[in-house]
Amino acid sequence: MSEIADRAGAVLTIDLDAVVANWRLLAKRMRRGARCAAVVKADAYGLGADRVAPALRAAGCNRFFVATIDEGAALRPLLPGAEIFVLSGPYRHTEGDFVEHGLVPVLNSPEQIDDWAAFARARGSRTPAALHLDTGMSRLGLSHGQAEAVAESTATLAAIQPILVMSHLACADLPEHPLNRRQLAAFTAARALFPGVEGSLAASSGLFLGEEWHADWGRPGAALYGVQPRPDRPNPMAHVVRLEGRIIQVRDVDAGDTVGYGATHRVADRGKLAVVAVGYADGLFRSLSSRWHGFVGGVRVPLVGRVSMDLIIFDVSGLPGETARPGALIELLGPGNTIDEMGMAAATIGYEVLTSLGRRYCRRYLGGPAG
Amino acid sequence: MSEIADRAGAVLTIDLDAVVANWRLLAKRMRRGARCAAVVKADAYGLGADRVAPALRAAGCNRFFVATIDEGAALRPLLPGAEIFVLSGPYRHTEGDFVEHGLVPVLNSPEQIDDWAAFARARGSRTPAALHLDTGMSRLGLSHGQAEAVAESTATLAAIQPILVMSHLACADLPEHPLNRRQLAAFTAARALFPGVEGSLAASSGLFLGEEWHADWGRPGAALYGVQPRPDRPNPMAHVVRLEGRIIQVRDVDAGDTVGYGATHRVADRGKLAVVAVGYADGLFRSLSSRWHGFVGGVRVPLVGRVSMDLIIFDVSGLPGETARPGALIELLGPGNTIDEMGMAAATIGYEVLTSLGRRYCRRYLGGPAG
Repeated sequence: MSEIADRAGAVLTIDLDAVVANWRLLAKRMRRGARCAAVVKADAYGLGADRVAPALRAAGCNRFFVATIDEGAALRPLLPGAEIFVLSGPYRHTEGDFVEHGLVPVLNSPEQIDDWAAFARARGSRTPAALHLDTGMSRLGLSHGQAEAVAESTATLAAIQPILVMSHLACADLPEHPLNRRQLAAFTAARALFPGVEGSLAASSGLFLGEEWHADWGRPGAALYGVQPRPDRPNPMAHVVRLEGRIIQVRDVDAGDTVGYGATHRVADRGKLAVVAVGYADGLFRSLSSRWHGFVGGVRVPLVGRVSMDLIIFDVSGLPGETARPGALIELLGPGNTIDEMGMAAATIGYEVLTSLGRRYCRRYLGGPAG
Repeated sequence: MSEIADRAGAVLTIDLDAVVANWRLLAKRMRRGARCAAVVKADAYGLGADRVAPALRAAGCNRFFVATIDEGAALRPLLPGAEIFVLSGPYRHTEGDFVEHGLVPVLNSPEQIDDWAAFARARGSRTPAALHLDTGMSRLGLSHGQAEAVAESTATLAAIQPILVMSHLACADLPEHPLNRRQLAAFTAARALFPGVEGSLAASSGLFLGEEWHADWGRPGAALYGVQPRPDRPNPMAHVVRLEGRIIQVRDVDAGDTVGYGATHRVADRGKLAVVAVGYADGLFRSLSSRWHGFVGGVRVPLVGRVSMDLIIFDVSGLPGETARPGALIELLGPGNTIDEMGMAAATIGYEVLTSLGRRYCRRYLGGPAG
């Protein structure tokens, strides 16, 4: 078989040193005494948790958050000495999985708390867990009244050892939104129910709201991977991702020719098109049809017509000579066409660009732990 | 470890018998003498080529199309006696992969033809391939002039044995679009350059344009998987996919409470929300925010607020008693909320819904080859 880098439709380069640099930058920004965890759920936002998490572990990160038991179990052997929290918490009959794989559940509801307490009693030992409080997002977590009931139940607290009290901000990317301060107040009130237990409130954007929101643990995810945490300011995070698509074919077109499905693009002048082996099955959203651009040697080339399942088409008329030729690469994501910009062009956010990154790409990692 | 079906955030059920029934229906619709292949690229449109393709093979399908060498190589041992065509064709230095894995290249460009001919000469045997003609989509394929040059080159045809001449329709889902007839005419003219070689023009929607478009081989993909091939008519295809998301938590909410990121949804009346462990990292597009609905026991429940990475929220106030409870399932895709409808709600098409189906789902297959 040929080399994967020679036959893949695209090459996705992931800079692990940039991820580590982003984590260090955020850790340094935390208020004095507070520490920085890392959110590596959804396969580290599509970038490969099996590579990203060990790189952060080697840099000193010792607390990780995943969404599911399976994500946690897969990472457990790769993160010796680190804590792994599972945000969805246990479903009934999965409590044993947490002990088996050394995972800490985030308990979101009275039912999860009751089940975990019953499980701990049956085990005969007080078992650590995080408590998730809902402070205004109406998603996962205990209401204030439910948190009070937990705090007042000596039976529950004899079985469960809360090691973290956490909540999640709904509008952290909108610094002026009044909900940010309301959530902070609700979090502070609920935390007071559990004296001596550490707290965590802010994810990537929340860390930029100010130190009041930092509590004891930051939980950045997106910003580690280069997503802009504050849309109203220049992006302080290093670029992590580069995506280059391979040209299968270059064709001459004439004025009036139509391009792609639905014949939505009409060629204005005689020129050249390059067909690239990436499509919406690779996470290059169909909503980017005629709304994205690549770069070849610093020259911008517009994506024309509809995104197909496995193919996209660029107008490469502006490229000199034989620059666009079969086998050559067009940069689809990079410093000049970022994940945030792609999110905007696709009417979504950079987060979804990341989690949709394709499985058919040849993935290359730069940096990371030596050896 | 617990059972995956007990801990996965969603269960995706794929009915292989329905895929086979759809293939048979299309094969029966073909004009007399014409046959039906199956397109299983992009992991059989996200449904698992390793399960879908063998089911079709057992039903008698003996010709398959994939997008890439890797897809073909993975399927080769699972499809004894069947042909596997690779639509992207060879990149330079990958020609040997085709012979090694028993794959037939689709040659799209003069460069691919020259390279394949050189490869065949070096091997010392005339080597089969498909020729792809561009008839008006300006995507992959030879122009008419390039096809003429191939047909006139005795040296090329001494090295390459064309076993299929194919093209692809740009507007087959728009039956009245004039490009359909223009592409048919161009295809007929180009085919005449290669007498005795079989032809293939129509994919799912094209098969419904009429027998003139059927040529010798149909190449359906989407319709096999239940996508509506003719948006202007009732869907003749059987449903293949069912997706059920698991409730993590049910919460009471009051009038005025806001829900999810950005606090975009405001609760109108006291009621109940269910948080489900599926999000855009699982392919449930963020563009479905407040634009989708699930079903529980036949009762429609609206998705409210923004789709998060790993979570969605439904208003389950309309459900009786304890129907919505942690661990219970909400149908996210099924006969009452189809892939085509989800595509429309997300401003895309059913095809992209399929290819985005998540990797964290518990996948269950119904039917398929015995044993």
